[in-house]
Amino acid sequence: MEPLGNTIKAVPEPTLRRFPKYIQLLKRLRNENIRYISSITIADELDLDSIQVRKDLALTGAIGKPKLGFDLDELNHALLHILNWDNINDAFLVGAGSLGNAIMGYKNFTSYGFSVIAAFDNDAAKIGSIINNIEILPIEKLTDMIGIMHINIGVITTPVETAQQTANLMIAGGIKAIWNFAPVHLKVPEEVIIENANLSQSLGLLTYKLAEKLKSNLR
Amino acid sequence: MEPLGNTIKAVPEPTLRRFPKYIQLLKRLRNENIRYISSITIADELDLDSIQVRKDLALTGAIGKPKLGFDLDELNHALLHILNWDNINDAFLVGAGSLGNAIMGYKNFTSYGFSVIAAFDNDAAKIGSIINNIEILPIEKLTDMIGIMHINIGVITTPVETAQQTANLMIAGGIKAIWNFAPVHLKVPEEVIIENANLSQSLGLLTYKLAEKLKSNLR
Repeated sequence: MEPLGNTIKAVPEPTLRRFPKYIQLLKRLRNENIRYISSITIADELDLDSIQVRKDLALTGAIGKPKLGFDLDELNHALLHILNWDNINDAFLVGAGSLGNAIMGYKNFTSYGFSVIAAFDNDAAKIGSIINNIEILPIEKLTDMIGIMHINIGVITTPVETAQQTANLMIAGGIKAIWNFAPVHLKVPEEVIIENANLSQSLGLLTYKLAEKLKSNLR
Repeated sequence: MEPLGNTIKAVPEPTLRRFPKYIQLLKRLRNENIRYISSITIADELDLDSIQVRKDLALTGAIGKPKLGFDLDELNHALLHILNWDNINDAFLVGAGSLGNAIMGYKNFTSYGFSVIAAFDNDAAKIGSIINNIEILPIEKLTDMIGIMHINIGVITTPVETAQQTANLMIAGGIKAIWNFAPVHLKVPEEVIIENANLSQSLGLLTYKLAEKLKSNLR
């Protein structure tokens, strides 16, 4: 039999987007000393369709027990494993402004195996200061240090104007995946993974739905 | 003829998610003194499918000129209008931690017509302090002030433990749409709009894709 990691099929993106929700729910239920959970209960707690949840969980390889449901710890471990949150994902961050600082200080990320271990900026006033135990280093050191420390993940929290240039420096150093918070489309080689944490997309959905709602209330 | 606002059909969510990207691109091109743009150029700049872009833009009501393409200002205005970013969307924020402070200080939001005009916290040490010209007020004032100031949008940047309680206070005051940054599923009445800015979802996609990539490199 092959080890678990190789038998898992590719997981579709909508399912991947729900996995963190499941992990967050399981964490809460564990604190309430619950040991087993059914897909129906998960669906109910998260206002999801229970057939959808059952399909999602089938992709984890975790197997529910008749009448009891899924062992919480086993399911949690399977979910963490697929997202690679059971490993430490070390990252370098560039742009130590307010958003960068918030990400460096966001405690929740540590439970997702994500850790910013160094930050870089081009502002002499910021270089050398320490934010949440992370020293701000000069941008000139970025490319070399990525190579020396074998860092795979780069986080971009710079202004729009310097985001592409930052991405180029990261890729020159060997970064394989970029988490981009700057509201700009980055041009990168095909093999580099880009994930945009574009808050404006989320805000746009909110303001659109609100405007639609206010219009329908007027009718 | 009906006014523009009423003739626009409902815009599907994937299209809405692309609109901020178009707006960001148009902003950049305007700074380069470009006046007209075709859907093919937009698709090329953003690595999107040009048929997709053409369909998206057709939903805005903006009409391209033969050979020239879309007037940048006209297209920009149409996009802003659909997202309601041509209005000021005043919001109250609860949870003046590092993420809350970052959102209060994030200058890009002002160009999306989004403005946090007051912030609330339950930490006596924070109350009365001023962050980016926004005073931190005691949480006890939240519900009344929502009603007095007719605020529609609430932003939750509290820890997980107090997020649901914060949502309840917001809804009691009359908040119609909640932008939730706490990694927890909120239970709200059906008529309240919830948009989750769940950074863990974005991070999960990144770490999953990176793990898949590293695995395939090993093979």
